[in-house]
Amino acid sequence: MARRKPLRTDIAWSTTDTITVKGLDLCQDILGKVSLGDMAFLGMTDRLPTPAESLVFNAIAVCLVEHGLTPSALVTRLTLAGAPEAMQAAVGAGLCGLGSVFVGSMEDAARLLQEALPKSEVPAGTPPNIEELAKQLVAREIAAGRSLPGIGHHIHKPQDPRAPALFAIARANGFDGPYIALMEKVADEAGRQLGKSLPVNATGAIAAIACEMGLPWDIVRGIGVLARAVGLVAHVLEERRNPIAREMKTMVEEQATAHFR
Amino acid sequence: MARRKPLRTDIAWSTTDTITVKGLDLCQDILGKVSLGDMAFLGMTDRLPTPAESLVFNAIAVCLVEHGLTPSALVTRLTLAGAPEAMQAAVGAGLCGLGSVFVGSMEDAARLLQEALPKSEVPAGTPPNIEELAKQLVAREIAAGRSLPGIGHHIHKPQDPRAPALFAIARANGFDGPYIALMEKVADEAGRQLGKSLPVNATGAIAAIACEMGLPWDIVRGIGVLARAVGLVAHVLEERRNPIAREMKTMVEEQATAHFR
Amino acid sequence: MARRKPLRTDIAWSTTDTITVKGLDLCQDILGKVSLGDMAFLGMTDRLPTPAESLVFNAIAVCLVEHGLTPSALVTRLTLAGAPEAMQAAVGAGLCGLGSVFVGSMEDAARLLQEALPKSEVPAGTPPNIEELAKQLVAREIAAGRSLPGIGHHIHKPQDPRAPALFAIARANGFDGPYIALMEKVADEAGRQLGKSLPVNATGAIAAIACEMGLPWDIVRGIGVLARAVGLVAHVLEERRNPIAREMKTMVEEQATAHFR
Amino acid sequence: MARRKPLRTDIAWSTTDTITVKGLDLCQDILGKVSLGDMAFLGMTDRLPTPAESLVFNAIAVCLVEHGLTPSALVTRLTLAGAPEAMQAAVGAGLCGLGSVFVGSMEDAARLLQEALPKSEVPAGTPPNIEELAKQLVAREIAAGRSLPGIGHHIHKPQDPRAPALFAIARANGFDGPYIALMEKVADEAGRQLGKSLPVNATGAIAAIACEMGLPWDIVRGIGVLARAVGLVAHVLEERRNPIAREMKTMVEEQATAHFR
Repeated sequence: MARRKPLRTDIAWSTTDTITVKGLDLCQDILGKVSLGDMAFLGMTDRLPTPAESLVFNAIAVCLVEHGLTPSALVTRLTLAGAPEAMQAAVGAGLCGLGSVFVGSMEDAARLLQEALPKSEVPAGTPPNIEELAKQLVAREIAAGRSLPGIGHHIHKPQDPRAPALFAIARANGFDGPYIALMEKVADEAGRQLGKSLPVNATGAIAAIACEMGLPWDIVRGIGVLARAVGLVAHVLEERRNPIAREMKTMVEEQATAHFR
Repeated sequence: MARRKPLRTDIAWSTTDTITVKGLDLCQDILGKVSLGDMAFLGMTDRLPTPAESLVFNAIAVCLVEHGLTPSALVTRLTLAGAPEAMQAAVGAGLCGLGSVFVGSMEDAARLLQEALPKSEVPAGTPPNIEELAKQLVAREIAAGRSLPGIGHHIHKPQDPRAPALFAIARANGFDGPYIALMEKVADEAGRQLGKSLPVNATGAIAAIACEMGLPWDIVRGIGVLARAVGLVAHVLEERRNPIAREMKTMVEEQATAHFR
Repeated sequence: MARRKPLRTDIAWSTTDTITVKGLDLCQDILGKVSLGDMAFLGMTDRLPTPAESLVFNAIAVCLVEHGLTPSALVTRLTLAGAPEAMQAAVGAGLCGLGSVFVGSMEDAARLLQEALPKSEVPAGTPPNIEELAKQLVAREIAAGRSLPGIGHHIHKPQDPRAPALFAIARANGFDGPYIALMEKVADEAGRQLGKSLPVNATGAIAAIACEMGLPWDIVRGIGVLARAVGLVAHVLEERRNPIAREMKTMVEEQATAHFR
Repeated sequence: MARRKPLRTDIAWSTTDTITVKGLDLCQDILGKVSLGDMAFLGMTDRLPTPAESLVFNAIAVCLVEHGLTPSALVTRLTLAGAPEAMQAAVGAGLCGLGSVFVGSMEDAARLLQEALPKSEVPAGTPPNIEELAKQLVAREIAAGRSLPGIGHHIHKPQDPRAPALFAIARANGFDGPYIALMEKVADEAGRQLGKSLPVNATGAIAAIACEMGLPWDIVRGIGVLARAVGLVAHVLEERRNPIAREMKTMVEEQATAHFR
């Protein structure tokens, strides 16, 4: 079995007295100068963010940290109840559910936008045919029986408040291009074609802003994953102080087996 | 089976038009104003950090993001190779190994310091008997056959460069109290009693600084867990662009079964 | 928020003095009478297997338990090295990589067979047009640029020895119908159309046999998942006795960062 | 960095036409001859079980497969709800909670028994001083403020029905030695010293039987881990057919944030 290629990483390496991360000296260039959010940006893009990019990237990451007792948070708490000595596994288990349904919808929205407006073709500013583009995109997805990602919300009415907040932050920092425009038109069009109000939600806003920042759609889920890890650690701490996992388990089990009694 | 207590969380909750996290309005008070690192601090302490706390907390978190091809990074890459559609599980699996051996040593160091200097007894400034305290602590641990956490390094010689860098950042921001002093004395004492140079390493520096910031020892591991999630996402992206997992697997398997051939 | 439906499980429930699993009394009907493999069959099909089904199902499950230092086994070992106190998380992490690439190919093969020969249309015995069906199926997949699952092997030449062994066991126990026939024809056809020998591999054999047993394609991956858990526990035990994870990590890291030195 | 030792595994290896597992030819000696439960025994002990060992080992493994909507089962279901494309990660996440609290208590019981009666000192049959041994052991644990593992049950009254069922199976197959005797005496003694009925539960019975079979205490948790993987696959299938995860999440969240409204 011939060796096909040498192993190689360019992320980080060490000598006896230095540690280099993404080409920067950890001790000289990073510690005390780069924040955790900017470090995440560096890991995703191979460069540090500008101040505007930092502010906007941190906003979208922060937005994904916490949304209460999500399935992920329940998973972390239930796992901790059985293995309190392994909080890292409780957080790890909690991340496992960030798949196609929850965090994945952000990825789907970013993909839809980037496929409709390939990066290489994006001119300066918003293309003139953005409404027509949205109309066709929405019609195609509806015809294919697919639900449109990034719009509507089952709790937040009339609109997910995070979307306008994030769009305002993005625009105030110079990110106000064709992807945000297209996402908003898609929401309008979908509302029209489906006959109900379906404004852009947090997922759609984050996807559009990530596109504006030049992040490829297939790394967008990563923002959700790292942000949620931050949130799940807080659930570990609350579960330790005020545990609910066992009670939740008892309540669910009683209800779910009541038909036998 | 009587219900023992009502379920309750105070981390976050939503209404149709607001989202509240740790008592703050997500859209008004957090987005665009709080960075990811500060959000982690909020999750761990129930309040936002001061500017000095923010700088120091971000530094210790950033320090834990990345250290090359750690076992966790290899786990994430090997998992991705089998399930490229589930990057969240690749990161989750990578976190599962942050237990007693690697990230746990940071927790052990913080615990040692907090047990030696209980928070309630810490006076303003460093206690006068800090050298005697270190001497006893080191002697006790050596006598019990336990290795002292937070000192020495198998690669970085003569010293882990992260420790002085972090201590300098902490001191420049007003965190220069008894825990850092005790950690340094423990390293000196251990070196003396064991007859070799064992300076404070990154783990010990982070533990001591976390103590100075008032973080309970049992949440220190959480900083490592969330920081490493940030780093593992970068490994997912590099593994996609330049995969090494399969080659690594082949190389290991060939060596490990060579005795049969 | 209206409650949409009551919670319900039919898998198991308890009273003060009985435990019922899938309608059977655990202590009276299962313990000492049902083997672990048959329990897995019960969990997947809601009934106990016949003796022939038991023998064949156990054979395919056993076949998936172990294949040396797979990526999953390496993940379990690397995770254990960091968290030796949490072997359950080491096994859990190892399972996370059983996705589309490795275990998923078994699922893909089963799906391909069941879509080509829907259960409702399968007559007694093999349909007369099986060769034509295989020819069309192979041509379609090749034209679509998809690789055919369940055939060929990068190590085992000229053939994966597990496939004929499993087919012999299946046939000796009365499972010798259209799915096995189709799988074999697909392998022949693919070899012909692609101009190289591509015999059925273990994955393809297991998929075909699972189809013969009436298992829906979307639960086939589950056999791999539970079987691999059995194998990963053995890797935990060997890693404890004769650890290789740290050495593997050092070897990989040295090679992968050599270009920097 | 000198290479300290060569990588090596003895579990399995392959050539172009053979696969060897634990010294046996997979295709000749294992497939169709060894059941899944016996494969687990082989993985844990490096040899195939006798018929009596097989029956008893399968009984204890089967006993651990399923106990309804445990925290692990809820974790698997909640994870699947977010990532239905990654059932392997749903099972993996479910295993992560099998730590010190649930499955670990079985390990604790086995350890207690093996430390009280070291294997090398176990004579043929039960030692005459078994009552005195139990009395001292119970008194020591109570004095140290530790709860005794393997006895009592919060649901099953007056006794966990699995314990007598498993003991009957073990005895009928020749496993009736000092560990089972000690476990029963410990339960009697604890009941006496604590003033309430605390009969041996399933955990204690399995621990004692595992000791009788010569399994080291530190691999006993592994039986629980692999058995539960079998059970969790069944929960994946039921959750697909009749999902409860989202409803459970809604119910828990409503209750847990009701104090805000």
